[in-house]
Amino acid sequence: MAKATASKSPKYVYHFGGGKSDGDASLKSLLGGKGANLAEMSRRGFEVPDGFTITTEVCTYYYANKKSYPKGLFEVDTANAIKKLEKATGKGFGDAKNPLLVSVRSGARDSMPGMMDTILNLGLNDKTVEALKAKTKNGRFAFDCYRRFVQMYGDVVMGVQKRSENEADPFEHTMEALKEELGVHEDSLLTEDHLRELIKRYIALIKDRTGKAFPQNPFEQLKGAVGAVFSSWMNDRAILYRNKYKIPHEWGTAVNVQAMVFGNMGDTSGTGVAFTRNPANGANEFYGEYLANAQGEDVVAGIRTPLKITDMATDKVFSGIYKQLLKVRAKLEKEFGDVQDFEFTIEDRKLYMLQTRHGKRTAQAYVKIAHDMVKAKLMTPEHAVKSGDPQALDQLLAPIFDGADEKAAEKDSYLTAGLPAGPGAASGTIALTAKKAEELAAAGQKVVLCRTETSPEDLRGMIAAEGILTARGGVSSHAALVARQMGKVCVAGAGEITVDYDKGTLTCNGKTLREGEAIAINGTTGKVYGRKVKTSDSELLQVLVAKTMKPKDSDLFQAYDFVMKLADKYRTLGIRTNADQPDQASNAVAFGAEGIGLCRTEHMFFEGDRIDSVREMILFAEDYAKFKAESEEAKGDDQKIAQLKGQYAQAIDHFKGALAKLLPVQQKDFEGLFESMAGRPVTVRLLDPPLHEFLPQAGPQMEDLAKKLGVKYDRIEALGHSLHEFNPMLGHRGCRLGIVYPEITEMQSRAIVRAALAVAKKTGKKVVPEVMIPLVGFQQELKNQLDIVHGVFAEEFAKAKTKLPYLVGTMIEIPRGALTADEIAEHAEFFSFGTNDLTQTTMGMSRDDSGKFLPYYQKLGIVKANPFASIDQAGVGQLMEITLQKSAPVRPGMKYGICGEHGGDPSTIEFCHKIGLTYVSCSPFRVPIARLAAAQAALRHGSKNAKVAAKAKPAKLKAVAGKG
Amino acid sequence: MAKATASKSPKYVYHFGGGKSDGDASLKSLLGGKGANLAEMSRRGFEVPDGFTITTEVCTYYYANKKSYPKGLFEVDTANAIKKLEKATGKGFGDAKNPLLVSVRSGARDSMPGMMDTILNLGLNDKTVEALKAKTKNGRFAFDCYRRFVQMYGDVVMGVQKRSENEADPFEHTMEALKEELGVHEDSLLTEDHLRELIKRYIALIKDRTGKAFPQNPFEQLKGAVGAVFSSWMNDRAILYRNKYKIPHEWGTAVNVQAMVFGNMGDTSGTGVAFTRNPANGANEFYGEYLANAQGEDVVAGIRTPLKITDMATDKVFSGIYKQLLKVRAKLEKEFGDVQDFEFTIEDRKLYMLQTRHGKRTAQAYVKIAHDMVKAKLMTPEHAVKSGDPQALDQLLAPIFDGADEKAAEKDSYLTAGLPAGPGAASGTIALTAKKAEELAAAGQKVVLCRTETSPEDLRGMIAAEGILTARGGVSSHAALVARQMGKVCVAGAGEITVDYDKGTLTCNGKTLREGEAIAINGTTGKVYGRKVKTSDSELLQVLVAKTMKPKDSDLFQAYDFVMKLADKYRTLGIRTNADQPDQASNAVAFGAEGIGLCRTEHMFFEGDRIDSVREMILFAEDYAKFKAESEEAKGDDQKIAQLKGQYAQAIDHFKGALAKLLPVQQKDFEGLFESMAGRPVTVRLLDPPLHEFLPQAGPQMEDLAKKLGVKYDRIEALGHSLHEFNPMLGHRGCRLGIVYPEITEMQSRAIVRAALAVAKKTGKKVVPEVMIPLVGFQQELKNQLDIVHGVFAEEFAKAKTKLPYLVGTMIEIPRGALTADEIAEHAEFFSFGTNDLTQTTMGMSRDDSGKFLPYYQKLGIVKANPFASIDQAGVGQLMEITLQKSAPVRPGMKYGICGEHGGDPSTIEFCHKIGLTYVSCSPFRVPIARLAAAQAALRHGSKNAKVAAKAKPAKLKAVAGKG
Repeated sequence: MAKATASKSPKYVYHFGGGKSDGDASLKSLLGGKGANLAEMSRRGFEVPDGFTITTEVCTYYYANKKSYPKGLFEVDTANAIKKLEKATGKGFGDAKNPLLVSVRSGARDSMPGMMDTILNLGLNDKTVEALKAKTKNGRFAFDCYRRFVQMYGDVVMGVQKRSENEADPFEHTMEALKEELGVHEDSLLTEDHLRELIKRYIALIKDRTGKAFPQNPFEQLKGAVGAVFSSWMNDRAILYRNKYKIPHEWGTAVNVQAMVFGNMGDTSGTGVAFTRNPANGANEFYGEYLANAQGEDVVAGIRTPLKITDMATDKVFSGIYKQLLKVRAKLEKEFGDVQDFEFTIEDRKLYMLQTRHGKRTAQAYVKIAHDMVKAKLMTPEHAVKSGDPQALDQLLAPIFDGADEKAAEKDSYLTAGLPAGPGAASGTIALTAKKAEELAAAGQKVVLCRTETSPEDLRGMIAAEGILTARGGVSSHAALVARQMGKVCVAGAGEITVDYDKGTLTCNGKTLREGEAIAINGTTGKVYGRKVKTSDSELLQVLVAKTMKPKDSDLFQAYDFVMKLADKYRTLGIRTNADQPDQASNAVAFGAEGIGLCRTEHMFFEGDRIDSVREMILFAEDYAKFKAESEEAKGDDQKIAQLKGQYAQAIDHFKGALAKLLPVQQKDFEGLFESMAGRPVTVRLLDPPLHEFLPQAGPQMEDLAKKLGVKYDRIEALGHSLHEFNPMLGHRGCRLGIVYPEITEMQSRAIVRAALAVAKKTGKKVVPEVMIPLVGFQQELKNQLDIVHGVFAEEFAKAKTKLPYLVGTMIEIPRGALTADEIAEHAEFFSFGTNDLTQTTMGMSRDDSGKFLPYYQKLGIVKANPFASIDQAGVGQLMEITLQKSAPVRPGMKYGICGEHGGDPSTIEFCHKIGLTYVSCSPFRVPIARLAAAQAALRHGSKNAKVAAKAKPAKLKAVAGKG
Repeated sequence: MAKATASKSPKYVYHFGGGKSDGDASLKSLLGGKGANLAEMSRRGFEVPDGFTITTEVCTYYYANKKSYPKGLFEVDTANAIKKLEKATGKGFGDAKNPLLVSVRSGARDSMPGMMDTILNLGLNDKTVEALKAKTKNGRFAFDCYRRFVQMYGDVVMGVQKRSENEADPFEHTMEALKEELGVHEDSLLTEDHLRELIKRYIALIKDRTGKAFPQNPFEQLKGAVGAVFSSWMNDRAILYRNKYKIPHEWGTAVNVQAMVFGNMGDTSGTGVAFTRNPANGANEFYGEYLANAQGEDVVAGIRTPLKITDMATDKVFSGIYKQLLKVRAKLEKEFGDVQDFEFTIEDRKLYMLQTRHGKRTAQAYVKIAHDMVKAKLMTPEHAVKSGDPQALDQLLAPIFDGADEKAAEKDSYLTAGLPAGPGAASGTIALTAKKAEELAAAGQKVVLCRTETSPEDLRGMIAAEGILTARGGVSSHAALVARQMGKVCVAGAGEITVDYDKGTLTCNGKTLREGEAIAINGTTGKVYGRKVKTSDSELLQVLVAKTMKPKDSDLFQAYDFVMKLADKYRTLGIRTNADQPDQASNAVAFGAEGIGLCRTEHMFFEGDRIDSVREMILFAEDYAKFKAESEEAKGDDQKIAQLKGQYAQAIDHFKGALAKLLPVQQKDFEGLFESMAGRPVTVRLLDPPLHEFLPQAGPQMEDLAKKLGVKYDRIEALGHSLHEFNPMLGHRGCRLGIVYPEITEMQSRAIVRAALAVAKKTGKKVVPEVMIPLVGFQQELKNQLDIVHGVFAEEFAKAKTKLPYLVGTMIEIPRGALTADEIAEHAEFFSFGTNDLTQTTMGMSRDDSGKFLPYYQKLGIVKANPFASIDQAGVGQLMEITLQKSAPVRPGMKYGICGEHGGDPSTIEFCHKIGLTYVSCSPFRVPIARLAAAQAALRHGSKNAKVAAKAKPAKLKAVAGKG
């Protein structure tokens, strides 16, 4: 926008080419990724065919105005751009002698490969095709171009497509029919005359199906193509893709119109795609593929298996081009500061760059590349942190094949090897279609989707599958590309495999597997096995958790650790973990957790036979409460009280007895946690779930319990009924339990303080218990529980004749808690947002029941993301902000955390950073994700107390880069 | 506070008496009601014994500071006040010759009769009692005073009380023992010497029980008594009382210390209580009672049945006093502008006023008095509106006895007649103790509590009972007083009745009824019947609803109508009603409703056999939705769609068929409503509850449904399971139904618009439908439903070739809706707060499940009132305010309503007025309450657009007063 002209309406069309451009890489949101990079490449001296970009604002306008265009877009802006293009190329749009032909491509802010439509060879018509023939002296080439253009245009712009799944594509059908008439079996054997006839039939087909003529006027063609690109922004595939990657639907796409260069003009022409480094594993090697005499789409589609880019070095025709490409490779990394994924075309021995972008990469490649390029000073540390997808770090923890079992499989079930396009191990049931993959996955099976090749239609199935295996297609094929982006395990182009969809089989070297049978693929090595293979810990887990591998022996760990430490320099948010067990806690510490943000004490209740004591406590709780209430009424009347004590003797004995049994058990639990956290803070939440969750189901289990407690079965059943709730989520739980049964709060507090004192004494280390009261909505609730906790701590401190620092705080997990945070802050020493419940109450939406309507909501765009995965910033987030605004003045220096499942979600973490939380707490395995996401948030939004930013930034960063 | 001195600490002690006072009636919150009015009476020339008031601020201080007092309170402030009192009375505190004796009484801002403790004759000790004897020349009197004081002090201040329910009061026991020793049967026969012995024993008893001596020092006595009064503020009775009347516990009580005057000094002394008008029915008659030679407590306690105040006119000793009292009566009404409830004492033919206050009255008396006094210009119209308890208007709608059946009962079951102390009809089971009354009521029975007399201990039982019958006590007895205040039906002092608690019987003129048998009391006439008597509509209902009585024939209606019209002049809030049926709607209009604020369409679903169609719709809804989803996926593939249509034929037929059947039925419902509202706006809420609520329970009903719909039983059962929800309150309901099943929204919208068009055509009157979308949390939800509604309305308008104005709005009932009200307001034309659900979600508290802990919350003071009855202003109310703040700028002139059950709660209505709602909507019978509450809110808080305030106020008001 900075470069927009001062004219009244915004600048809708940006020219590029000839070493100058209207735009540059900074205008990505306006020009799309492709358009911005084309402009940038042109500026930086790469050879780019001239062209222009119609901005994303036009797309936005298009959808906001009933699919119409800004005034004068075609008549003035585009017409002028075409004139400029004509001047630059010396050709004329529709010129019968020297026609300008263009490609029309989509280009969104974030690349959405294969999701939207592309038109090539636009400008061809019955007249200009003759000029192309004359100019190239190749009639077959010219009419093949025209044939392709008519077919593409008929399909994409005019909507001539197959009408049912079983129908053949109408253009393919027409071609096949002609070939049959002619007795010609291969496309390449069709002559110029054949093609002339085919084009006639195509044009007739279009007229027949649409009632409209195929447009001969290039401007009309262009208008149609631009419209088709904008329309494709809202096709189902594209919407699905954006939903998955959380790309806002409002962004829109730009349209790039570029002078055609032909990679298919003959044997001195060609086309290719390449990465400056290996995007699957991050190795510093030139990585890509090319096809001679082909157009770019041929490479991506995976129909012809291309050659490795490195083979070009020894090619007779292209070895010189290869040298140029090596220079391009180095220049790209230097100029763009990251691995580049670029497309090129060779038209009659001349190299053109068609696009470049930061290469999508697997998590493994991400850490490796970040490590290597920062060390080589090719990448800034900031970019290293910013360029990773935190969510994808999950991949580094995904299981790999068990060494022994894979060795055995190699002997008994080896099938073949393909291209290792997505590292990892996938083992599951064969599905030959995307639909089948979805079905099997929905039924709970692990699936490997096996196809000859994949196409954008297969996206849902690919998402559902554990891994993807294709018989055709190279490292740049659709399958490889999607696998890279989604972190799917993928083996591509395993050429020995034949998939027969009709028979439902996959055949390889004489062995035949049927759909539904087992298969395993190793995306790190490319090997394929005809059975399931056992899995074991990922390399990272072997180093960090199992400690079966030494850090120095793992390159992957080195790279991961480098990136994590880099992230830690930038982030200002603390990272804690949700853990209830010592081993969980230790794992989390290994991943970098700085404390426990949530220990759910009730998880401990289910372990071993202690559940019996819990149930005993519950069974007699109500009677005990009655006893207390009646005693209070009879206060002063000792006789009456004695009588009540007799009457309720059983309840008193059991209730107090059960608590007495639980006390030492809970204390031991806490001791384990405190020890494993070795001085780090541990937030313990008091009992939260409704009591009926602890009861057994009716039947044998209940009978068993009745026997154990020596009461009648009916009594236990009656208790089940009496504890039944209409809306348990909003029922008798959280601090409401501790208020009705203060003895439970007392027992838990005592277990905590005793454990803390014991561990402090034993280890000599600091122990920092933080007691957390759940579900507080009223300050008096907190006050009530607080008094009990402080009372118990004081008692135990007195008994032990020592003290230790501790905090008492509360969860903010119902709207009233947030709305009255100023009152509650008078008592709380910390707040932790329980965003699971806060989301349910703020939205009035039960997570367990939302399955009936939430899918409709996502489809209709009512919600952008699943609010139970990523925080709803406008609603729930607003309450969080209100909480901070209200409470901060009441208690300066208050600690704020989040301990809902959102705590491990990158966009939630970014939000938490922005509003000023102290820490996020997530499950142990998400700690690395949180570290990276927190660092990115700090880089994006800054922070006054940023660890790095506060000091001398560049010096520090160089040191980091040098050290790692 | 305005009169507080400029000294550093606040003024804690206020003097009154001798025609001058430190305070006045405006200082009610500081001095309590009694203290302020004593000050005011003294200023206005009534004869008041001198005294001083210790302010409520001391009480607040006392509880905020671990039951301690402000520095110098006793040493300086109280000591000075006593000095002033000594000077005014010419007596000395503890003086052995002319001792100053005082009473110490509580006095809260709002009167809490009998709830807190009182001490009389303070200042008496072993020495001063002799002086009193000398001065009065009446040893028996002096020692009886001392005896009473020691007893009262021992009980109230030193806590010597019975230790169990069965034990006798220890002082009574001591007295009885002495009487037995002496062979004396009546208290009055105890001589001075007997009393001297009794006092000795009392003092010994105190020492024995408490280990402390009875204090002889008057200052020490005073300090103890003041402490006891403050302590009694927090006794269980007082807390219960305040909870019932929503008096804040923070207010605290003042303490009034006043020179004693003795009504028990002999036959020329006496005491009494009186109302300037009849507080039970409002009649303009002098009403009250007195006792010669008695202290005030004797009258209230109901132990001796007092004489009617009007009997005094012909009394030899007191006829002169009666003339003075008539003057006092007139002066009181004139000076205080309302009916006064006052207490007086005659000490040796001299009349003293001990207190006055606005008289508590029944609802019937309230409207009558307001009507009469405003017309007589004795009361301002503002005060007439402000002085009523809106909630109490309920009493005017309570059933009265059926004329015929009461006539029959008069013949077959007449027992006796007592004082008509609380108008109305109560018929039920006899309970002789408060506890029994509570038990029977808890078991669902209607109860009449029958006692010799009632005392504050009986409060819970009185609350539980339908009516109260006492054998002793007059119009000022505890029973009569509580009945008046609570609007309980009450017959007091039915002297022919004898209650035998041991035998569990009630005897009257030879007839004996047992506890558990039936009885009926008419609180309007005082008659008592020994069986149940049928009830019929209240007089007001007979006039307004049944129309069996003409307005002009009902004085009660005249008075009611006068007050309602007065209220309407002041209120600015609109009053609507929640109604789903034409007759409900008509009733509401009769009560003054100005529109329907909530018509729950689903209530209509249950009527007649239409529930079958509803169930048919539900049964096939999911399959229909599947059909739609799959059709959409197959878009363009006509063959596939045809196949789907075949596959889902049954679901399509049934689902659409059921909707088609419901459409005309719903239309008819709406026509009825529109007609009965005759041009007033009608807000129709679209389907809200989760679908499973419409399904039958398992078993025969399900089988029946299966047969009717021609499907298998299993299928219906399976549907039940599939619709089951964990938290239905947060589940698939509200607009979530209309989004998944837009056909339902469409059908309902069509029924509404067709009904509106039909009624407009038929009646020629305006019809104003307001379509309300429930449970909106996201603007896109509303947009989605809005598009359907507008589409249907446009279609039907086009078909009918006419239009009518209508609105589409939404409920704000989940926090997210409130928090994003600015976004939602872009689409909504009105907001209606659904405070039932908003309370549940904001508090994370299910109303249905809160019974397990909410009672604890109320007891512990965590919540002040039941948040489902009276809006939680700090939490839920805050969200309402946020809604207004955010949405008002987006859509100026937006209509705001409330349609939760809170809409009929006076304190909620006050809140709604304050934050600026347009209207409240409540159930038809609560409309009068809402009208009065809204007027009071306007008077209390003003309003820029107040109907009255905007115009010339005094002139207008005079007109009202003159007209009514």
